[in-house]
Amino acid sequence: MKNPNIVILGAGYAGLITAVKLQKSLGVNEANVTLVNKHSYHYQTTWLHENAAGTLHHDRTRIQIKDVINTSKINFVQDTVTGIDPQQKSITLENGQLDYDYLVIGLGFEAETFGITGLKENAFTISNINTARLIRQHIEYNFAKYNNETEKKQERLNLVVGGAGFTGIEFAGELANRVPELCKEYDIPCEKVRIITVEAAPTALPGFDPELVEYAMNRLEAKGVEFKIGAMIKEVTEDKLIYEKDEQREEIPTNTVVWAAGVRGSSLIEQAGFESNRGRVKVRKDLRPNEYDDVFIIGDCALMINEETERPYPPTAQIAIQMAENTAANLKRLIHGNTHLESFTPDLKGTVASLGSKDAIGVVFGDKKLFGWSASAMKKVIDNRYLLKLGGVGLVLKKGKLNFLNL
Amino acid sequence: MKNPNIVILGAGYAGLITAVKLQKSLGVNEANVTLVNKHSYHYQTTWLHENAAGTLHHDRTRIQIKDVINTSKINFVQDTVTGIDPQQKSITLENGQLDYDYLVIGLGFEAETFGITGLKENAFTISNINTARLIRQHIEYNFAKYNNETEKKQERLNLVVGGAGFTGIEFAGELANRVPELCKEYDIPCEKVRIITVEAAPTALPGFDPELVEYAMNRLEAKGVEFKIGAMIKEVTEDKLIYEKDEQREEIPTNTVVWAAGVRGSSLIEQAGFESNRGRVKVRKDLRPNEYDDVFIIGDCALMINEETERPYPPTAQIAIQMAENTAANLKRLIHGNTHLESFTPDLKGTVASLGSKDAIGVVFGDKKLFGWSASAMKKVIDNRYLLKLGGVGLVLKKGKLNFLNL
Repeated sequence: MKNPNIVILGAGYAGLITAVKLQKSLGVNEANVTLVNKHSYHYQTTWLHENAAGTLHHDRTRIQIKDVINTSKINFVQDTVTGIDPQQKSITLENGQLDYDYLVIGLGFEAETFGITGLKENAFTISNINTARLIRQHIEYNFAKYNNETEKKQERLNLVVGGAGFTGIEFAGELANRVPELCKEYDIPCEKVRIITVEAAPTALPGFDPELVEYAMNRLEAKGVEFKIGAMIKEVTEDKLIYEKDEQREEIPTNTVVWAAGVRGSSLIEQAGFESNRGRVKVRKDLRPNEYDDVFIIGDCALMINEETERPYPPTAQIAIQMAENTAANLKRLIHGNTHLESFTPDLKGTVASLGSKDAIGVVFGDKKLFGWSASAMKKVIDNRYLLKLGGVGLVLKKGKLNFLNL
Repeated sequence: MKNPNIVILGAGYAGLITAVKLQKSLGVNEANVTLVNKHSYHYQTTWLHENAAGTLHHDRTRIQIKDVINTSKINFVQDTVTGIDPQQKSITLENGQLDYDYLVIGLGFEAETFGITGLKENAFTISNINTARLIRQHIEYNFAKYNNETEKKQERLNLVVGGAGFTGIEFAGELANRVPELCKEYDIPCEKVRIITVEAAPTALPGFDPELVEYAMNRLEAKGVEFKIGAMIKEVTEDKLIYEKDEQREEIPTNTVVWAAGVRGSSLIEQAGFESNRGRVKVRKDLRPNEYDDVFIIGDCALMINEETERPYPPTAQIAIQMAENTAANLKRLIHGNTHLESFTPDLKGTVASLGSKDAIGVVFGDKKLFGWSASAMKKVIDNRYLLKLGGVGLVLKKGKLNFLNL
């Protein structure tokens, strides 16, 4: 009897944890598991804003897949997925093709630019290792150019963050820490540099507790971050951003717009013909799409409604990891001929947003608010717990954030 | 009786050593000495190619002027010289004016692009700290962009050095050391990167001993540097360089051309009306121009003929430093009413060209040829001797290259 082929697309939080769990729970002769990923490495999306600001090297953020996967148990194919055919049960890769009996789609997010003029062409997004280090270098290059021009261009020193949501706030906090270092490196007076966060909603961090929002804004403003709240970005060009606030159009000269205000699921989802909204598929309770029983969609491409709030769960690492654990268990059931699958219930442990080094805000254990270094320490503990889950103590020691008690 | 005003323009090798020598040899009541420099720091021009390649941080190359000048003895004015009026004995600065009784011009070099189409606009030059770190960042930025584009652009990875003279060879050697680090940092296969040196003369390092030239080319070629010898650069655009060799036009796609094949004296020299050739003034034996007895022109703006070879001495740090010592001694004579000035005779101790870390070629003590690590060690000894002269043992320990015995 032929072993079933399990194919996992993407080695982000969702895909990689699925693979690691299957590696532990399945015997070698129970299934052929193949993990497909574009790069040889996994990266922690939740740390990319630090790589983009230049406060943490990207090699700390990425983990070679072969360091956490036992390739005698799991096949690893480094290739780019170009198409999914759920009817033929076939995956097209840039350099090949794979057939599956069971498919796990963990293809992650893409930036969503909502058709804002020039945004796609001229703004950067914190999407992966390549874009994060490009942002870091783009900022440095502009600082390096500044003193080489007779006519000083302020747009080189105006750093604009599109969106004051979770990622935008975290990135602005890192930038505030990074700017003094950049000024020293390039002989630029710090008071000339501006960090401007532009948010369309009537508040920063929409959805967060107002006390935490106020704390975050005060702390970032004290570090020099400016906020334009209720300001809708209208257009981005090579050297400026135009926004509208209180029915007034305003212009910020800038070469650096980092868009952190919209994500969507992978566009391969739509191309595959799944019923979806912005690349996110409303999945059943067992994380399978309505149309197919042999496909699981997890992580940022999955849409699940929180029945308490009647709103979708946000696409977070926490939920992606839990979905992966649920899916690995369900795959084991299916392989063993058990078609009664376990429903997925998110266990939300809380949310912590970093405000740069040694500062953060968060809500944990349901309603406990955290501020400052205790929130920052909690964030590092969360990050280390993930590494522990992924690769054990060795990985925590190698890639972990171990200075969490550093006051 | 009024103390004479001595004004020194430029704190390069020539100007700064003049100031340091006067500080030691003149009493406070003998003269008012004012040193004018654009930046708060002096830099070692001979190390800039390392900063530009990214193999040495520019803070190792620069020295705060106040760390070597006693400002209770010497006035330091940080400003940019905009004009010299030798008839009115007056210097115009961007933010002021200075009158002098004696003037020392040590304004250094500028790049000479010989009217090659597009070179001035599109090529970089290793001229100062600002341009050196811009080159470093420009190369990094292009490497960072490479993996962010669907259509890979080879011009981002082709690094072209214009000229295989002393600076071009030294820079190519550093680049060869730097490229593997950059490839690792940006996930680029090293075999995709090209370092191409384009030289118009029929040999690399024209004027050097042929055995040394062969050694240098072999060593650099082994590290992956390509040479186009007898190749005349015709045009540089944003994304390519065109050269002519054997009456054939060839094109290299490249975003990075570093021009290291021509320097000239400061253009302020011509604006001041001195008789000059490309900003270099043929000075008398005591380093004064024909027209004025109260002006000394030293360093790269001075032209002096080597009577043995009937060719001008090259504009080197070694000669600039010796000219400064001669001039400081002559200024002391003039202030003491002694108008019989000492003639300048260069004491050429040799030349060593670095080929990247731990490798070099050189001729010292007249005709002794050096290769490899012994030449490399000798180069570091020369650099440290200069620091010793400038700021004593403390400066050697702080900024010196102390790993010269590191094999």
